[in-house]
Amino acid sequence: PRSGGIATMFRLPYQKTAEGLDACFVGIPLDIGTSNRSGTRLGPRQIRTESCLIRSCNSLGAAPYESLQVADIGDVSINLYDLKKAVCMIKEAYSKILLTGCKPLTLGGDHTLSYPVLQAIKGKHGRVGLVHVDAHGDTSDEMLGEKIAHGTPFRRAIEEDLVDPKKMIQIGLRGPQYTPDDHEWQKNQGVRTVRVEECHHKSLNPLMSEVRQMMGDIPVYISFDIDGIDPGFAPGTGTPEVGGLTPIQGMEIIRGCRGLNVIGGDLVEVSPPYDPFGTTALLGANLLFEMLCVLPGVKYPTK
Amino acid sequence: PRSGGIATMFRLPYQKTAEGLDACFVGIPLDIGTSNRSGTRLGPRQIRTESCLIRSCNSLGAAPYESLQVADIGDVSINLYDLKKAVCMIKEAYSKILLTGCKPLTLGGDHTLSYPVLQAIKGKHGRVGLVHVDAHGDTSDEMLGEKIAHGTPFRRAIEEDLVDPKKMIQIGLRGPQYTPDDHEWQKNQGVRTVRVEECHHKSLNPLMSEVRQMMGDIPVYISFDIDGIDPGFAPGTGTPEVGGLTPIQGMEIIRGCRGLNVIGGDLVEVSPPYDPFGTTALLGANLLFEMLCVLPGVKYPTK
Amino acid sequence: PRSGGIATMFRLPYQKTAEGLDACFVGIPLDIGTSNRSGTRLGPRQIRTESCLIRSCNSLGAAPYESLQVADIGDVSINLYDLKKAVCMIKEAYSKILLTGCKPLTLGGDHTLSYPVLQAIKGKHGRVGLVHVDAHGDTSDEMLGEKIAHGTPFRRAIEEDLVDPKKMIQIGLRGPQYTPDDHEWQKNQGVRTVRVEECHHKSLNPLMSEVRQMMGDIPVYISFDIDGIDPGFAPGTGTPEVGGLTPIQGMEIIRGCRGLNVIGGDLVEVSPPYDPFGTTALLGANLLFEMLCVLPGVKYPTK
Amino acid sequence: PRSGGIATMFRLPYQKTAEGLDACFVGIPLDIGTSNRSGTRLGPRQIRTESCLIRSCNSLGAAPYESLQVADIGDVSINLYDLKKAVCMIKEAYSKILLTGCKPLTLGGDHTLSYPVLQAIKGKHGRVGLVHVDAHGDTSDEMLGEKIAHGTPFRRAIEEDLVDPKKMIQIGLRGPQYTPDDHEWQKNQGVRTVRVEECHHKSLNPLMSEVRQMMGDIPVYISFDIDGIDPGFAPGTGTPEVGGLTPIQGMEIIRGCRGLNVIGGDLVEVSPPYDPFGTTALLGANLLFEMLCVLPGVKYPTK
Amino acid sequence: PRSGGIATMFRLPYQKTAEGLDACFVGIPLDIGTSNRSGTRLGPRQIRTESCLIRSCNSLGAAPYESLQVADIGDVSINLYDLKKAVCMIKEAYSKILLTGCKPLTLGGDHTLSYPVLQAIKGKHGRVGLVHVDAHGDTSDEMLGEKIAHGTPFRRAIEEDLVDPKKMIQIGLRGPQYTPDDHEWQKNQGVRTVRVEECHHKSLNPLMSEVRQMMGDIPVYISFDIDGIDPGFAPGTGTPEVGGLTPIQGMEIIRGCRGLNVIGGDLVEVSPPYDPFGTTALLGANLLFEMLCVLPGVKYPTK
Amino acid sequence: PRSGGIATMFRLPYQKTAEGLDACFVGIPLDIGTSNRSGTRLGPRQIRTESCLIRSCNSLGAAPYESLQVADIGDVSINLYDLKKAVCMIKEAYSKILLTGCKPLTLGGDHTLSYPVLQAIKGKHGRVGLVHVDAHGDTSDEMLGEKIAHGTPFRRAIEEDLVDPKKMIQIGLRGPQYTPDDHEWQKNQGVRTVRVEECHHKSLNPLMSEVRQMMGDIPVYISFDIDGIDPGFAPGTGTPEVGGLTPIQGMEIIRGCRGLNVIGGDLVEVSPPYDPFGTTALLGANLLFEMLCVLPGVKYPTK
Ligand SMILES: [Mn+2]
Ligand SMILES: [Mn+2]
Ligand SMILES: [Mn+2]
Ligand SMILES: [Mn+2]
Ligand SMILES: [Mn+2]
Ligand SMILES: [Mn+2]
Ligand SMILES: [Mn+2]
Ligand SMILES: [Mn+2]
Ligand SMILES: [Mn+2]
Ligand SMILES: [Mn+2]
Ligand SMILES: [Mn+2]
Ligand SMILES: [Mn+2]
Repeated sequence: PRSGGIATMFRLPYQKTAEGLDACFVGIPLDIGTSNRSGTRLGPRQIRTESCLIRSCNSLGAAPYESLQVADIGDVSINLYDLKKAVCMIKEAYSKILLTGCKPLTLGGDHTLSYPVLQAIKGKHGRVGLVHVDAHGDTSDEMLGEKIAHGTPFRRAIEEDLVDPKKMIQIGLRGPQYTPDDHEWQKNQGVRTVRVEECHHKSLNPLMSEVRQMMGDIPVYISFDIDGIDPGFAPGTGTPEVGGLTPIQGMEIIRGCRGLNVIGGDLVEVSPPYDPFGTTALLGANLLFEMLCVLPGVKYPTK
Repeated sequence: PRSGGIATMFRLPYQKTAEGLDACFVGIPLDIGTSNRSGTRLGPRQIRTESCLIRSCNSLGAAPYESLQVADIGDVSINLYDLKKAVCMIKEAYSKILLTGCKPLTLGGDHTLSYPVLQAIKGKHGRVGLVHVDAHGDTSDEMLGEKIAHGTPFRRAIEEDLVDPKKMIQIGLRGPQYTPDDHEWQKNQGVRTVRVEECHHKSLNPLMSEVRQMMGDIPVYISFDIDGIDPGFAPGTGTPEVGGLTPIQGMEIIRGCRGLNVIGGDLVEVSPPYDPFGTTALLGANLLFEMLCVLPGVKYPTK
Repeated sequence: PRSGGIATMFRLPYQKTAEGLDACFVGIPLDIGTSNRSGTRLGPRQIRTESCLIRSCNSLGAAPYESLQVADIGDVSINLYDLKKAVCMIKEAYSKILLTGCKPLTLGGDHTLSYPVLQAIKGKHGRVGLVHVDAHGDTSDEMLGEKIAHGTPFRRAIEEDLVDPKKMIQIGLRGPQYTPDDHEWQKNQGVRTVRVEECHHKSLNPLMSEVRQMMGDIPVYISFDIDGIDPGFAPGTGTPEVGGLTPIQGMEIIRGCRGLNVIGGDLVEVSPPYDPFGTTALLGANLLFEMLCVLPGVKYPTK
Repeated sequence: PRSGGIATMFRLPYQKTAEGLDACFVGIPLDIGTSNRSGTRLGPRQIRTESCLIRSCNSLGAAPYESLQVADIGDVSINLYDLKKAVCMIKEAYSKILLTGCKPLTLGGDHTLSYPVLQAIKGKHGRVGLVHVDAHGDTSDEMLGEKIAHGTPFRRAIEEDLVDPKKMIQIGLRGPQYTPDDHEWQKNQGVRTVRVEECHHKSLNPLMSEVRQMMGDIPVYISFDIDGIDPGFAPGTGTPEVGGLTPIQGMEIIRGCRGLNVIGGDLVEVSPPYDPFGTTALLGANLLFEMLCVLPGVKYPTK
Repeated sequence: PRSGGIATMFRLPYQKTAEGLDACFVGIPLDIGTSNRSGTRLGPRQIRTESCLIRSCNSLGAAPYESLQVADIGDVSINLYDLKKAVCMIKEAYSKILLTGCKPLTLGGDHTLSYPVLQAIKGKHGRVGLVHVDAHGDTSDEMLGEKIAHGTPFRRAIEEDLVDPKKMIQIGLRGPQYTPDDHEWQKNQGVRTVRVEECHHKSLNPLMSEVRQMMGDIPVYISFDIDGIDPGFAPGTGTPEVGGLTPIQGMEIIRGCRGLNVIGGDLVEVSPPYDPFGTTALLGANLLFEMLCVLPGVKYPTK
Repeated sequence: PRSGGIATMFRLPYQKTAEGLDACFVGIPLDIGTSNRSGTRLGPRQIRTESCLIRSCNSLGAAPYESLQVADIGDVSINLYDLKKAVCMIKEAYSKILLTGCKPLTLGGDHTLSYPVLQAIKGKHGRVGLVHVDAHGDTSDEMLGEKIAHGTPFRRAIEEDLVDPKKMIQIGLRGPQYTPDDHEWQKNQGVRTVRVEECHHKSLNPLMSEVRQMMGDIPVYISFDIDGIDPGFAPGTGTPEVGGLTPIQGMEIIRGCRGLNVIGGDLVEVSPPYDPFGTTALLGANLLFEMLCVLPGVKYPTK
């Protein structure tokens, strides 16, 4: 029964490396890049636990395990007391994963991790397009004087040319800010920013058509901060902002990436202590399953 | 005050049998038909507790206690260690209730219970139409090799001709599935299935017009699995599926049954341990109150 | 960091009186006017705690601290064992605050408090217009035989001519009621009542245009009962009613008051024990921040 | 099964009055006498809910239902908005109960209630002895200037000669205080005060021998404030004090009253919102069951 | 770090069978034998999660992994909808485990499971001695008319001669009962019953000396129902009884089995939904680790 | 009322510096030195919140505010993304506090903080004696390869001669360990280690007599890790170990320091997300109040 058994991601087999896989789930138990409430270090474990409910096909009929070789490869070993070292360790671990040709889908962990993951991805795929769902832009130059933290990964990524800002979209931005416009810098780089007010009361399918247009053939990475979703649905996160996306809109965004050249993705900022019954983690697990279903090569029923 | 007094359903009088009543509330403390998380055995108790907040008229002006004789008749006595025997006990208990001419509104308990309730209802009313709200179709042939469980009641009901599949609608279906289309069987029987994607971002009033068309004069049973609603609003359930209906849509479905020949209903799958402050149970109590308000004979203000 | 420091409202300076301020935050730790679940006496403390996350500009670019002098002036000292005395103490305390010319934004506390606050406001501003968000009309004549309680403040306010009923709107009304229409009395006084069914599935911006029309230049008070919002988003309250407004709609209402002559506001009925991780209080803190941002004199970016 | 059925106290029959009973359970949903955290108005309901687990004999072999006629008579109807009136209503309701000769065992509710209960008891039994378990002495002269509140009942009771201070013992006193000795007044009246430091690391059976000596034949009332027990075991209360009695010691105190002329008792200050899974209420229900078992006339096995 | 990695028991390697092991951890996700609150089906998963904190030596210096080959072999596959079939499946699975010569330490699951486990053990080791910690005797003849449930395993075990009643001790018995002495039957069989009142306020080391005397060389099984411990320390269980053993006493009991011929053990009745932060499961994991440390062959430091 | 007002420590006045104070409360919102579960960065805030319940005298009659000038000086500003820098910032901040002659009582924060605090204290007082309550020795040489983390502060402190190991005692040590004896190093330095097994079932007053002997006149620092207390009483911590001290024993330890030359203390490792109703923080606040009461100069009643 689903209540039994070792809690690997989606109850997939566990293997130590990515060797032989088309896609893998990998966790990063990181929370020392967090600015407000911590706890995301336990995100991977809780996402795995809740993922045990999830079955083998998505509700559009995609059966990813029939098209792709997928496994859980466990967690990256990180230094919990030195964020800069942790970031290096993540980059190295992902470089190894990518070398096998496997596409990583990451269970976070705080959003700092997207920076070293994108560094590794650049080594494999070059500069990528980015679909970024978040309440926050995460393009601060510094936090408390530090260049590396969960509010800076995409500033670093753009500066280091890991991401093409013209092929980057941020969806769900909102919340009280530090300045009248916290998103000015990335807009100046050419990033498309979609504030949550543009999303309310409607489907995001039309927006995603535009995104598919924008992306074309470029390798695309999906970075989904669970705080993009409203805290009513996703309370288990460290920097909740009211008035967010609905889970349905979150699904629409990921499903809307179908057809793109998706080369990886992450689901970050799930903080289990703030959601002890796992509603947020369950949502995270579902979003990761949908990411798996939009990887190139997954077959859908022809109707 | 509302915080005081014995917690019967809506603080109605308690009586041992359905004798003399037009409608009754009855609980079934069942959870051994559950596949994922358990706990619904305590659903009836928590729904009663939260129901104490609810007043005597609904917000459309219906005053059911002025039109109907209603009471709480307590819980069905069931065998907690043998599901097959429990199912028999439920069928017998409901046959007795129905004999009095009273319409039962059931506080669940897991969804297995709809099967014996519908068996009893057939004895009284013959084959019925069914409005079924759920994230899941509940038409599996077997679960872990068993014919009786909370994922099979409507397979059994259709097989035993308790429900007319042409007068049956399922609303809110979603979630990762076991096969590319878990709802194929019932669609082949003629059941109308409405996936949640068809419901998002809009009112279900138009859908319910169609339902009233479809049903005509046939006796109609309402089976409402609280997991049809999104876990953001109804976390207290055992098989939560992200991206569900809103409470408003749930209300629209039940209110849309007004005018039909409703002969009973159930509200199932409330699992209190996963919602210790009772938000889910309160929603369940409200949905049951709305079911009471659409029973034939309840008067509304003429405006 | 945001996790550090004494938890004043928005981490503003604390001062003992309102002297020299344009606007102040003030708490009223009251819950003895509550009819169902209590706990709102701890609302001010939890709202302050969660408010520490909130930054200095709203997402429309308003920078209130650059336009206005604002501080936290702590809580009103009340009698916890005698509601009638507590009400007098609140009136007196607010009269002193208003004498300084400062606009009070109140952290509740149960809704009883709006009555003495409006009494004090009348002394300063005369009769006011009222934007009232709530699941309940709060215009009962009595509760359990008492004239003062959290279900009666606006009956008293209209009777005592504190509010102009022709310039009063109630948004979000719903819930099972005591009579077929619990809002008849205020409708007869000329109050505009907007039931939640009129709000579902859409933006409230058009409604707020009408409100701005209706109000004209009259001094306007905003009274926001957090139970106006759906319990899925705001479980931490004492009289939750299913099927409420979304947080987004709540924001639209307050932002829609921009341009009016807002002279004060309150956010009431946050009950911390029913939301231990503070999601409801965080929403309350955001709504109070938005109230601050619509006070006359707050500058917005001209674009 | 125990998870089913209407939640009356110990699943006893409910009856409207005390007529014909030897003992009754009665609830008082009061919390407006509370000084710190509220919530005890829901104590009676949660104690009833948790009491459903309790069986018919205690573990010493007492079978109270075979010796006594016992029922649940529901809750006293109180004014929730005026503590002084509520106190009068309680006194009247208990006077009626006592007139029937029935012994009341009360489910609180805040400790204010002991004052009117003892007033009513004086009318029936005259001055009584008192076994009072509490972290606090509850003999303040005033709280925030008021004579009636949950910190004053035993000051009033001694002043009005409801209790013989020479036959009164307080067990479990502790906690930071307002003065170097908050218990001076009652010590001067002759009350025996037992600070918790005298209780640690040992059985209270010897102490209870002394209590039985002290009491002799006088009618004895037991007032048990759940905050006498350590918050590790009983977190669900409004004024928790660290370093309290163990549940075992609480049991020893009540069991030690066997043989006394016990004429009633109460279990107060259970605040459900602070213990959503009901551990505290379950302890309260057990303590009330033990009180029932020490009522005169309950037979024990002779061994 | 400990917050990372797949949550196997104590982060041991996972293997599919017991082949080659001296001892194994195995889970049984069972809760359909439960009489009061359910949820133990998730016990194995939560115990594994919390076990990740536990290091490799116990605090007496035992280093079990240096003496024994140990692994996690996952969960027994059971029928969730038919308790009688589940019991058969458990017996078969354990028979296979025992065939390898491996000693099973079981993560429960409700206490019903001890019955089929002991059946399997009899096949391997013959009749065993039993150290049984529990608030309840679990020797009912029937529950709701059924022979198999979590209150009957030791009745069945004695009847079927799986356990030698003269080499059986039950520690921690308490709680309201169904009859003046619920433990009469087993006392008549020769079982030693130790009520919790005999344990309070002192060390159980002397008792365990007697137990070692009593047992001699017979193979001994340890069955530890977490409800033996007080609910203040172990709230996460389905049938909590106040006034229980302390965790320290629980440790003393298991450590006191050192030197006996322990051939297996179980830790049952951990119900995660009632303890969302895992305190109970962590205690369970520690008790299982101590069981591992008293298996014959584990070396201790010689001092 | 206690439920009102800004939550400073014990509702003391807040001031920016320690100037003019005999003792101060100061918070350190640190959790990036944590090895298992995080969350202690919010410890200071929750301890302040719960401290509002605490009155002005302890239960032995000490009235610290009459003898000493005390205030809350807020939190140390730390770098949340670089532990090594944070440690430097703490040392500097405490050096300034100590310069004023004020004695700091610290609200933690993870245990890493004791290292820089002791560094600063050495500058003022020279080498100190140490009363250290903890489940863990915290004398690891490294954690994950790092010298600074919450498991190493006392290794560093002894190495840097901040503490005299001959005047150091560790009480409450327990828990599964990494080696057969994790405390060997400090025992070799001359530290007295008291394992929890030596503490069970009895008062620690005799032990504290020995401690007072041992310390003599040396300046003494008290470092109290809340995980020294059993998780049944103090669940809100990151590395809970079963079988700990009772709160009473914790009180006995601190009260037993009366008469020593106490020059400061800390209460660390309170992790609010794991104890949302604040029982652990309330215990922490009480322990800090008792530390205040044993500072030299606090007068006690002479009896
Ligand atoms: Mn982010
Ligand atoms: Mn974010
Ligand atoms: Mn269903
Ligand atoms: Mn369902
Ligand atoms: Mn209101
Ligand atoms: Mn309201
Ligand atoms: Mn008390
Ligand atoms: Mn009291
Ligand atoms: Mn058992
Ligand atoms: Mn048991
Ligand atoms: Mn430590
Ligand atoms: Mn520690």
